[in-house]
Amino acid sequence: MDIYEKLKEMGLTLPGRPAKGGIYQPVVQAGNLLYVSGQGATRDGAAVVTGYVGGDVTVEEGREAARLCTLNALSCLEAYTGDLRRVRRLIKTLGFVQSAPGFHGQPGVIDAASELLCQLFGEERGVGARSAVSCNELPGSTSVEIEFIFELEA
Amino acid sequence: MDIYEKLKEMGLTLPGRPAKGGIYQPVVQAGNLLYVSGQGATRDGAAVVTGYVGGDVTVEEGREAARLCTLNALSCLEAYTGDLRRVRRLIKTLGFVQSAPGFHGQPGVIDAASELLCQLFGEERGVGARSAVSCNELPGSTSVEIEFIFELEA
Amino acid sequence: MDIYEKLKEMGLTLPGRPAKGGIYQPVVQAGNLLYVSGQGATRDGAAVVTGYVGGDVTVEEGREAARLCTLNALSCLEAYTGDLRRVRRLIKTLGFVQSAPGFHGQPGVIDAASELLCQLFGEERGVGARSAVSCNELPGSTSVEIEFIFELEA
Repeated sequence: MDIYEKLKEMGLTLPGRPAKGGIYQPVVQAGNLLYVSGQGATRDGAAVVTGYVGGDVTVEEGREAARLCTLNALSCLEAYTGDLRRVRRLIKTLGFVQSAPGFHGQPGVIDAASELLCQLFGEERGVGARSAVSCNELPGSTSVEIEFIFELEA
Repeated sequence: MDIYEKLKEMGLTLPGRPAKGGIYQPVVQAGNLLYVSGQGATRDGAAVVTGYVGGDVTVEEGREAARLCTLNALSCLEAYTGDLRRVRRLIKTLGFVQSAPGFHGQPGVIDAASELLCQLFGEERGVGARSAVSCNELPGSTSVEIEFIFELEA
Repeated sequence: MDIYEKLKEMGLTLPGRPAKGGIYQPVVQAGNLLYVSGQGATRDGAAVVTGYVGGDVTVEEGREAARLCTLNALSCLEAYTGDLRRVRRLIKTLGFVQSAPGFHGQPGVIDAASELLCQLFGEERGVGARSAVSCNELPGSTSVEIEFIFELEA
């Protein structure tokens, strides 16, 4: 099954390419690495999950935010590559969780992004290096922001 | 117009190479990528913009901080390459804004760095991937810290 | 002296490979770059230094945390490469210090990691680009989390 079949099987559709919040490119290629700009928990340009995980936002809501960031990244990658099947594997994830005081469960939140990529790309290609950290505040109060590095087919 | 002519036209001069705050190199090359260490809002070694954006520091002051970080990065790149015209393009920006509680405008602050690089390198080469996030505290209370990846000419 | 002799001389032993806190790989290789996932201040799976630097955690304790992160990274690199002597040089360090309000000494904390790598790999190969920033909260309340990029021998 390719990634489009997997998305369909999981009942997921890619969101529209996320609105840009400034002067940057959604994806930049260097060699065969694809740097994906930080993605927030939006859908078709509208904020979906905002607030502080561990405070007014539950861990499960934070995990949904992480999934939205990931789908936005895939939407950007599709726009850049023309075909997600050209994306060979995940290299690295850097996830920022907008965290309420005393919340220390960032890895469990970012894991929802990692789990989704593992399901879509498979264990061989969908599991990368990762850091899961916090921010006290994030743009538009998105609960999660994630940037990725992927590898394009050779 | 090359980057030196652009700097002159914009009335900008590169600051002296920023003082190092520890055991690291300002620029490290891997392949043709140039990793630039996190730069703060200093000029010739002295802190210029300190404090919390959205609190005691306005967004416009934060934007000036972002420009200073960028000029410091260019100063480091010039010292490394000997000639900024050898820097081919921007790959990626990771910007940290020291943010007061409830401030969610990080992209607008980091955009001042992105705008400057776009003006200096042009739209084709000066717009990279980007993440704009926050920190609760930054070194020396600099209002902004930014790290960059650039590409050296082949 | 190779890195194993240096470790011995310094009285250091590599910890067991740190327990994974989610769906990621400790090390991912892209070209000859090795991306090391964010490491916390644990030893053999147990949290060693937790809390907020500048608050309930002193700078010296924070520096010990940074050293533990570094040793964990080396443990991951040894597991990946089979032999740390195959790791050619440090490219980049991104260090997050869980910081108490008003603490601005992140570089001094992360410097303990940089110093250790400089001692182990030597000045030519052990000093990379670096950013030292803060988080308001880190996973499991580790006082420091650090991710690294190293270069593998050609």
